[in-house]
Parts: sequence; C-alpha cells; structure tokens
Amino acid sequence: MPRIAICAPATPITREQADRVLALAAAEFPQLTLEFDPQCFAADGHFAGPDEMRLAALLDCAASGADAVWFAKGGYGSNRIVADAVERLAGREVNQQWFGYSDCGYLLAAAERYGIARAVHGPMPVDIRREGGEQAVRRALAWFAGDRSGLEGGLDGQPAAPFNLTTLAMLCGTRFLPDLTNRVVIVEEVAEHLYAIDRLFFHVTEHLRGIAGLRLGRISDVPENDRPFGSDAEHIARDWCARSGIPYLGRADIGHDAANRIVPFGLA
Amino acid sequence: MPRIAICAPATPITREQADRVLALAAAEFPQLTLEFDPQCFAADGHFAGPDEMRLAALLDCAASGADAVWFAKGGYGSNRIVADAVERLAGREVNQQWFGYSDCGYLLAAAERYGIARAVHGPMPVDIRREGGEQAVRRALAWFAGDRSGLEGGLDGQPAAPFNLTTLAMLCGTRFLPDLTNRVVIVEEVAEHLYAIDRLFFHVTEHLRGIAGLRLGRISDVPENDRPFGSDAEHIARDWCARSGIPYLGRADIGHDAANRIVPFGLA
Repeated sequence: MPRIAICAPATPITREQADRVLALAAAEFPQLTLEFDPQCFAADGHFAGPDEMRLAALLDCAASGADAVWFAKGGYGSNRIVADAVERLAGREVNQQWFGYSDCGYLLAAAERYGIARAVHGPMPVDIRREGGEQAVRRALAWFAGDRSGLEGGLDGQPAAPFNLTTLAMLCGTRFLPDLTNRVVIVEEVAEHLYAIDRLFFHVTEHLRGIAGLRLGRISDVPENDRPFGSDAEHIARDWCARSGIPYLGRADIGHDAANRIVPFGLA
Repeated sequence: MPRIAICAPATPITREQADRVLALAAAEFPQLTLEFDPQCFAADGHFAGPDEMRLAALLDCAASGADAVWFAKGGYGSNRIVADAVERLAGREVNQQWFGYSDCGYLLAAAERYGIARAVHGPMPVDIRREGGEQAVRRALAWFAGDRSGLEGGLDGQPAAPFNLTTLAMLCGTRFLPDLTNRVVIVEEVAEHLYAIDRLFFHVTEHLRGIAGLRLGRISDVPENDRPFGSDAEHIARDWCARSGIPYLGRADIGHDAANRIVPFGLA
C-alpha cells in the first residue's frame, strides 16, 4: 500500500487541482494513499508559504515514512530551502523517493548528492491542469504503484541526470549538484528566449566537461523575440556540445508537457 | 590624441546611432579619434554578424594600437567569442582599455583574468538612444579623454568587479572569471523578473564566498509577474548576502540607464 506525501517546495497548487488528482488516484490506483500537505495551498508572495513553512512541510513529508515525497509544483523557490533541507536530512538511511521536475530539481539534485532520497524526474500534481494532463499524472501514479511503463524510452543502462536547463545552470558549481562525471545529462526548458537557451548552454557546458553526453528534451513555449535568433534549440545544443567536446546524444522525451516521461537519477 | 576602436561583440547598432556619437565627440572631444568598425552594423540573426566576423573585428580593434576598444552594444553574444579571443590574446603586453558593460562583461572578465586589457565598466555607444543618453556617452568620451569625473562615487580603494547580474551568473565557475577574492562585486540588472533576480543571487552567492562584499546597482524595468514577488531587489540582495556570509555594502550608481557611471575592474 504505497503512501505518497505531497508538499510544494516552490509555488502553490489549488485545492481543485489536488481534488482532481485525488479523484484520479481513487478511481484508477486504489492501492495508493495520497496525502496532500495543507502547505500545498498556502501563499506568501510568489511562494507556497514562507521558506520556513515550505521547509517544515518538506521535512514532515520526508520524516513521515512515506514511500515517496511528491512535489506538487515547480515555479520557483525550492532553491531557497535546499540548504536547510540538506543540513537536516543529509545521509539519512531511508528508502524513499523524491519525485518531481522543473524548479524542484534543486531538491532532486541535493537528494542524490547527499543521500537523502532516490531522486526521480517526472510529472507533478499541477500537471493535471494541462491539456492531456490526466495522462501525465496517471504516469506518475502508475510509477508509484510499481508500473515502470512511464520510463523515458532512451535510457540505455548509463546513469542519467535529468534537469530543467535553468535549474541545472543555477546548480552548476554549487554544493547541491551531484558529480555528473560519466552521466548522461538530459535537459528541458520552457518559456525562455532562444538567446537565453544559448547563454545557459554556454554556462552548463563550461561546467559539464567529463559527462557521458547530453540529451535534449523539449524546449517549449519559446517567446518571440524582437528578431529571429537564427538557429533552433537542437542546433544550439549541438553547437555547445561540439565546442566543449561533450557528445550530443540526441533528443529525449521529457519536457514541460503532458508527455513528460519519467527519468530516475542514476540507473533506471 | 587618444584613439578609440569600436566593435560590436554581441548585437549591432545603427549607423544613425554611430553618427550621433561621432557628432557628439567631434563637437565636444575633438582630441579623440573614434573608429567604428563596419562590423558594428552587421546583422546575422540575433547577432552583429556571425561569430567569426565579430571575433575578427574584436581582434582587429585589439591589434590596432587603439588606446581603448569600446564595445558598441550588449544584448547577447560576446560569450560566444570569448574563448577564441582568450586563445588569441591571452597575456599580450599592451596598455589598452576594453570598455563597455552588460553582455560585454564576458569580455571584460576575460580581459582581466588573462591580462588582455584593462577592463572598464561604463556606457556604450548604443546608450545614445536613451533619454538623456548623450550624457551617458559624454561620460565615456570624457573618460577616454582623461577626465575621471565619471567614476562611480562609492569606489573606496578596494578593488572592484562590476557586472550585469546575469552575465556574472553565467561566468561563475568558468575559466573566464577572474579571482574575485577580496573584491567588491557590484551588480546591476535590467528586464528580469524578481524571481529570476532571486534565483541569480542564489547562484552567484554560492560562488562568491570570500569576496569583500557586494554592492547593488540598479535593477530596472522589472516585468510584472502574474503575482507580486513579495519583496524588492534590495531585500533580495541583502537576504542572499546574509545567507552566504557576504557583507552587503549598499547601493551603487550603475545600471542600464543614462546615469550609469564608470567602474574600472580592480583599483580605480
């Protein structure tokens, strides 16, 4: 009877979104117990409650004995509690997953680096609001129930490190990023200009020498700029890989969308 | 008779902008010789010509014997030629200034790190288009003519390191950033959401432990988000300085505006 504890380390979801996830789980995965921490619905400026409240909810979920801590939504803010979470949880001995993506990548990275939990990159409760979002949430719920069919199709026995590109860039060189030597790094991004994508690739490829290679997830909802950039996201990724001697290993089936598939950190 | 060679390592300016700068210089600083490389007006997608053209113009200006290389405009793109510029110019023995700001900070940083030139953070030809922009350009021209009245008012004998915040974040941990230990780091930003400012401070303060302190230039043209962030730029800077043990040293008189004052890297 897997138990899933849900908190929002960054920005809040609505009760209606949580109710839709609960209804889907009850109908299709009755073997799962989902527990939304009330903090998921808190608001304090940009965030789902102040840092102290978000940290407390994360620590409560982590200590609850749940099989997985599921992050409700990204947005921005989990980096603001990652240092304290590491201080409180580093090196604990538990068999727990932390599951989410986007801004929650700060916590996934630290979970792996400090042995806090097994980090998994995949859909979040907030994805229920997307067109086709039930399919995304269903993919995560099936995973929690033990069904591995939601795994990304290109994982080939090499350890992976999946990230939102901005999140990875902000982690580079910090104490929260695990050693990515010999990893296949997979990145995706949403709602960033192509010049910003290019700039982020400059930064991360400077830091990622020694990785096994890079796979490119979806770069979606790119805003129009005042003039065309002159190349596309895949060309940008190939260019920076070539400049830095990182093998470009092709596309990956992750992104800020309903089709976002599941990638565990390390070996699948 | 100071000679100023002008190129555009990132994005182009217009001939009309160059002509206005030339007219101002002719009228008020007849002792200066300004030479706009035709590359300043080139266009290739986002950029002022392809990487090879922008690099060639930069190398030409650097090798021209000019007293200063003045960068025409930021925007995005000087990071794409910085590695080749370093390879070609590192450790040369010349008494030349490189002068600009914003995206051109990649070249300023590398100039200082590799002894390529004396790096100076200040207004660029493109600033002529701003309201009050003549005053900004006049400040740079006066500097080239030997007048130090445009210096930022808070430089106090400690070596400085002035940056656009995003540019600094993308430089952190790379081979292009000089050692900032015991420097006063000064940052400014334009047209970024406050959540992005907060995120950039997370990243740079992780990298900047050991600096003498941080001063905050102007954070201007912050876009409206779907909800208020909950604090302002100065609170954000103070917060991340406190978290990381970096002394917060107050405001600085630099920014993406006509009042942008001049800050040499190192000692003024």
